[in-house]
Amino acid sequence: MFILDHNSPDPLYAQLARQIRERVLSGRLPAGAKLPSVRDLAAELSVSRNTVENTYLELTAEGYVHARARSGYFVSALDHEAPPPTAKRKLRGPDAAPGADPGAGPPCRYDFHPAKLDPHSFPAPLWRKYYLECLRESSGELARYGDGQGERELRQAVREYLDRSRGVACSPEQIVVCSGLQHALGMAATLVKDTHPRVGVENPGYFLPRSVLRNNSLEVVPVAVGPGGMDIDALKDSGSRVAYVTPSHQFPLGHVMPVGTRLKLIDWARAGGNVIIEDDYDSELRYQGKPIPSLQGLHPEGDIIYLGTFSKILSPALRLSYMVLPRSLLARYHELFRHYQAPASLLEQRTLARFMAQGHWDRHIRRMRTGCKKKHNALLRAVDAHFGDKAEIIGQGAGLHVVLRIPGMALGERELIRRAGVAGIRLFPFSETLDGGGGAEGLLLLGFGSMAPEEIDRATRLLAGICLGRDLPDTD
Amino acid sequence: MFILDHNSPDPLYAQLARQIRERVLSGRLPAGAKLPSVRDLAAELSVSRNTVENTYLELTAEGYVHARARSGYFVSALDHEAPPPTAKRKLRGPDAAPGADPGAGPPCRYDFHPAKLDPHSFPAPLWRKYYLECLRESSGELARYGDGQGERELRQAVREYLDRSRGVACSPEQIVVCSGLQHALGMAATLVKDTHPRVGVENPGYFLPRSVLRNNSLEVVPVAVGPGGMDIDALKDSGSRVAYVTPSHQFPLGHVMPVGTRLKLIDWARAGGNVIIEDDYDSELRYQGKPIPSLQGLHPEGDIIYLGTFSKILSPALRLSYMVLPRSLLARYHELFRHYQAPASLLEQRTLARFMAQGHWDRHIRRMRTGCKKKHNALLRAVDAHFGDKAEIIGQGAGLHVVLRIPGMALGERELIRRAGVAGIRLFPFSETLDGGGGAEGLLLLGFGSMAPEEIDRATRLLAGICLGRDLPDTD
Repeated sequence: MFILDHNSPDPLYAQLARQIRERVLSGRLPAGAKLPSVRDLAAELSVSRNTVENTYLELTAEGYVHARARSGYFVSALDHEAPPPTAKRKLRGPDAAPGADPGAGPPCRYDFHPAKLDPHSFPAPLWRKYYLECLRESSGELARYGDGQGERELRQAVREYLDRSRGVACSPEQIVVCSGLQHALGMAATLVKDTHPRVGVENPGYFLPRSVLRNNSLEVVPVAVGPGGMDIDALKDSGSRVAYVTPSHQFPLGHVMPVGTRLKLIDWARAGGNVIIEDDYDSELRYQGKPIPSLQGLHPEGDIIYLGTFSKILSPALRLSYMVLPRSLLARYHELFRHYQAPASLLEQRTLARFMAQGHWDRHIRRMRTGCKKKHNALLRAVDAHFGDKAEIIGQGAGLHVVLRIPGMALGERELIRRAGVAGIRLFPFSETLDGGGGAEGLLLLGFGSMAPEEIDRATRLLAGICLGRDLPDTD
Repeated sequence: MFILDHNSPDPLYAQLARQIRERVLSGRLPAGAKLPSVRDLAAELSVSRNTVENTYLELTAEGYVHARARSGYFVSALDHEAPPPTAKRKLRGPDAAPGADPGAGPPCRYDFHPAKLDPHSFPAPLWRKYYLECLRESSGELARYGDGQGERELRQAVREYLDRSRGVACSPEQIVVCSGLQHALGMAATLVKDTHPRVGVENPGYFLPRSVLRNNSLEVVPVAVGPGGMDIDALKDSGSRVAYVTPSHQFPLGHVMPVGTRLKLIDWARAGGNVIIEDDYDSELRYQGKPIPSLQGLHPEGDIIYLGTFSKILSPALRLSYMVLPRSLLARYHELFRHYQAPASLLEQRTLARFMAQGHWDRHIRRMRTGCKKKHNALLRAVDAHFGDKAEIIGQGAGLHVVLRIPGMALGERELIRRAGVAGIRLFPFSETLDGGGGAEGLLLLGFGSMAPEEIDRATRLLAGICLGRDLPDTD
């Protein structure tokens, strides 16, 4: 099956890995196929088991295969069209999703990922128009580095938006354009880690901040969060000097941090010289009443680092976001980052600035809010229709996802995700939101951004069948 | 002795160079051996003398051989640092100018910044065409996050380019798309800091790496660098576990790290489980002979993190670069960064991938090389004309800058930059390349990328007047 060259300078495991990779990419080894056991393949190829084991581990890390406990290694479903490495690639089709999820099975028809938008929502004609304008006007400036803090016209547009819509008080000098949460939070961590080495992070919470903060040498302490917001007493007991919170719309539980907790948090910061990192990732999407004003706006002179993004409303693929630094951290920012070059594409920064300055950002938010509200309501109706009183929705009324709690559900999370995958449903594991994983039984994270209302209904009906043990045919 | 294939797409001089290189590395051509004369070898191989001359010049630049006046070419001793052709300068002095802002002052007519390109060089029509194609085809995918490691088609295009032009051996799985050096180096630091906490960095050197590595919790130790490359004994003495080097074109001194030093560095890494970070930032721009092959290609299975960028040839404002990880770090990369989202704009990644796949990248490199060579030569001529024997050029023949040494110049750096600014000339302080600043008297960093040849001549004439105390009127 495989041919290894013992005289090649390439290690045997690398030769074997390359051949398996090629077969997976070319489809000769299809998704779901079981690979030979380590023992069998080693015997067949007359190599050590270590060699085969190394190959399988590498392919696992790369996402080509995955291990199932006591069953062996299986070819993963690659989420992209992938002709052999030398052939010219076509662009991905609309159903492709990057980053092969472990455990992905057959093609995904219904995607409950919590951070995907409507595939038709991107304002392509306007984007095209402004991008071409900026390319024409800025062509000479492409020969040099842009502003290291981000293009001034974009920072100005963000400032006006934050002032008008989020109650954030700041000047453009306090705004740093970033290429997404990982970038902003990495800088924030760098700014505080020497003086504030321990950070309390909402648990459950978004998984990315924990990774970023740990990768940037902060000690991450999980702090419980509930309908009342982060447990401030637990935060104090933890000895943290930084708190990472999502006050407008807690991820994943969906609660709004009550003003009482906000004030306690601000007092904690003020009294101890501590720092708050406010991640205001999707506050524009609020379906009842007005968006919740920012925490930063309650105490603009405090040590609050405010993070916002264009990923949840405009596009996660642009990689454009921003950070508002408190004045107290500006000197340190300029000291640590004075050599850093621009954070993101000059042309796309300018395109976005122009899009905002012409009023399209505000219009786009309104349109997205209306569209997402329909999907949100469709999901609530579908849960009601198909789960009845067997499930309860937590954190409704905002954002791109809700949490479903199914008391007494017998299925474990991994098995549930597997069965859903077989039915063409992609579920994002709730356990990923828990520091250390585990304890997610009966909790489902249901993102509704990428599906149309009818799809949401069909997907929820299928899902209810799986969760409640009534396997129903899809009537699609 | 050597076999040349006249039907190969590889130029004859490159074939010959490869065969000599192999014999030197294998010891079949021992240190000290005299190579055949240009005339004899040309006759033996039935090729022009030019071909052999080019081969010898290239091997000289790479450090495999050296010329002795009136004696011919000899194989260099690879296990020793090549003897420096000029005495190493002691770099010290009281007049440090850290933070000198080259942006302040009257309008700049002549900009000697070392990292600026020709303002007319960006291939805007092609960029426009491919961007619009990608926007049309990918519009639905803007609703989700792209591949966290970078778009596969871009990684594939980079792999092919690296294989073809830089001698870097890798698979697309080893490539991570990054948004510039600061991003790549931050990830590299995160990957190694727990096990390899101290990094030796070339001094003088680019200032950004020092900042990035320190901001990412590595201890940065300056290690002297000269015509023979980084001082490997000093590196060993420093207790560093990581070395950051620019072997193809040392920044700022412009030397090529000789192959002897390369092999010593690789031995140091292999023997101690250490890591090399190779920053190959502008190797495409070489004006004599072929680009110097990468260090990574000498030992592809070693622990070498290879960094490359599109900033020096295409545009610094796109913020697109890449990193090639050694296989040994892939598992750790997937562990630490598995939650990270895409590193840069989906559309611009795809635009660039298409630009490369259609052959435009290679054509663009050739065009830039020709254009930059003219500017480079104009600068050499201008220095000769206006400085005469009062100054010496260090590190010519590559990249976007040279270093000018003016022995005994009375002006301190800060005052020189001030006076130049008054005359409309922007100078970048050499002291910024020295860890801790200071000691830059009589050394000027002259970038020539952004000016036309005539401007270079005028600017150099003005500058000579200032440096040599002959204030001349600008005859522009």
